Amino acid sequence: MVTTVRHKVNFYDTDAMAVVHHSNYIRWFEIGRVEFLREAGITLNQLMDDGYVFPITEVSAKYVNSAKFDDELIIETTPEALTKAKMAFTYRILRASDDTLLVTGRTQNVFTSMETGKITRLPDAYYNKLKAMLD
Amino acid sequence: MVTTVRHKVNFYDTDAMAVVHHSNYIRWFEIGRVEFLREAGITLNQLMDDGYVFPITEVSAKYVNSAKFDDELIIETTPEALTKAKMAFTYRILRASDDTLLVTGRTQNVFTSMETGKITRLPDAYYNKLKAMLD
Amino acid sequence: MVTTVRHKVNFYDTDAMAVVHHSNYIRWFEIGRVEFLREAGITLNQLMDDGYVFPITEVSAKYVNSAKFDDELIIETTPEALTKAKMAFTYRILRASDDTLLVTGRTQNVFTSMETGKITRLPDAYYNKLKAMLD
Amino acid sequence: MVTTVRHKVNFYDTDAMAVVHHSNYIRWFEIGRVEFLREAGITLNQLMDDGYVFPITEVSAKYVNSAKFDDELIIETTPEALTKAKMAFTYRILRASDDTLLVTGRTQNVFTSMETGKITRLPDAYYNKLKAMLD
Repeated sequence: MVTTVRHKVNFYDTDAMAVVHHSNYIRWFEIGRVEFLREAGITLNQLMDDGYVFPITEVSAKYVNSAKFDDELIIETTPEALTKAKMAFTYRILRASDDTLLVTGRTQNVFTSMETGKITRLPDAYYNKLKAMLD
Repeated sequence: MVTTVRHKVNFYDTDAMAVVHHSNYIRWFEIGRVEFLREAGITLNQLMDDGYVFPITEVSAKYVNSAKFDDELIIETTPEALTKAKMAFTYRILRASDDTLLVTGRTQNVFTSMETGKITRLPDAYYNKLKAMLD
Repeated sequence: MVTTVRHKVNFYDTDAMAVVHHSNYIRWFEIGRVEFLREAGITLNQLMDDGYVFPITEVSAKYVNSAKFDDELIIETTPEALTKAKMAFTYRILRASDDTLLVTGRTQNVFTSMETGKITRLPDAYYNKLKAMLD
Repeated sequence: MVTTVRHKVNFYDTDAMAVVHHSNYIRWFEIGRVEFLREAGITLNQLMDDGYVFPITEVSAKYVNSAKFDDELIIETTPEALTKAKMAFTYRILRASDDTLLVTGRTQNVFTSMETGKITRLPDAYYNKLKAMLD
């Protein structure tokens, strides 16, 4: 199941090459991830209130075409793998006006206990909601 | 007493006009403020460990000239006013190579208790260190 | 005439005090300004293609309440003053869920020629569109 | 040959988990790359004045430990591969106080003509300076 969210490129996202700075797409993967969780019935705020954080352990991206100021982007987020301890997503970011592929990427996250700071196993209540999204 | 700290402009600080985005100078005032506190013998981490935060309530800036990628900047921070509940600073940011004035600014901060989230009075141990910097 | 645009707070907009970093609101004023121009029938890209840029010369903000991750914000932009050489806006940023006022602000911009880098007078075609928004 | 540059973590680099947001390390790889070029006798400004840009086509990072506000970081940049059309770097970011490894990464860049927007072959004057750094 693919989660889709739109994001407009702001002027402050551009750099002196007059295109979006490459680091911003890494931030926009996060927008996709948060939206994926919301569609799974989980808000990051809830997860944190329950003592879990969801830090990134790996990120990668390939830059195919550049986004420019005022472009409307489509961020597609797809769950790739899930265990009770970690989760991987893949991403595609496209320009909405012509469906040009701009960036592809992948992140690996782990579920961590805020109390111990260590990797932990996600309770079933959360795990099952995420699992349902991979089917 | 003026606190001086240097900061190099990174490529990711620029925007599509090929100059530093104006919001970044607001961030760099923070670098100046943190350095001022350090010269007063206070680290922001210490302050937070003791339960105090130091949020901004007002900021203003005038943009005189533009910084560009790879410019070395001088951030000058001057304490303007201090009570046990709040503190104001003024700033000047200059290009180091030719002392061109780029930006002037001012911030108003309040001392806030992390526990209550409310404005609080700073203990003498901190207040006296800050006070000594204004003399 | 007030221009209204919505913006969701992303996780990367927060800082270690678990609220939005104050510099981000300065960026969001820009979102409001760009949207105001669009409602006036002007895109910033058009303006730049015609050789005009619109740099900030002054900014100020008062921080009343803090936004948090996942808050939906309303950015209100109001034109305050206009000549052929410069324009001022005021802003209010509110939390959409309960209309709490978070930040107020003001910016002063100038119209600048990309060719000369100097302040210039805006042609009537643009000026009249902006003027119509103040009436 | 490894290029080393230091960078202090600012408060605005942190997020609501009270650690550096993962996207910032991607920005800091850029600081390392720019410093590497400088040590090779090339400034990015020179390269751009000569009509070349150096966009990223791939980035990856592994996050091992978290940096916090006020940490001093060491950014190590190592050239991995070089042709006249592209260049790869690897990175290590460490906490200076105790040499803890925080992040490792890799970028792939291409040399692009600003005029055509296409990948181009770097002239010998630049290529030889870069080549000397890999030996």
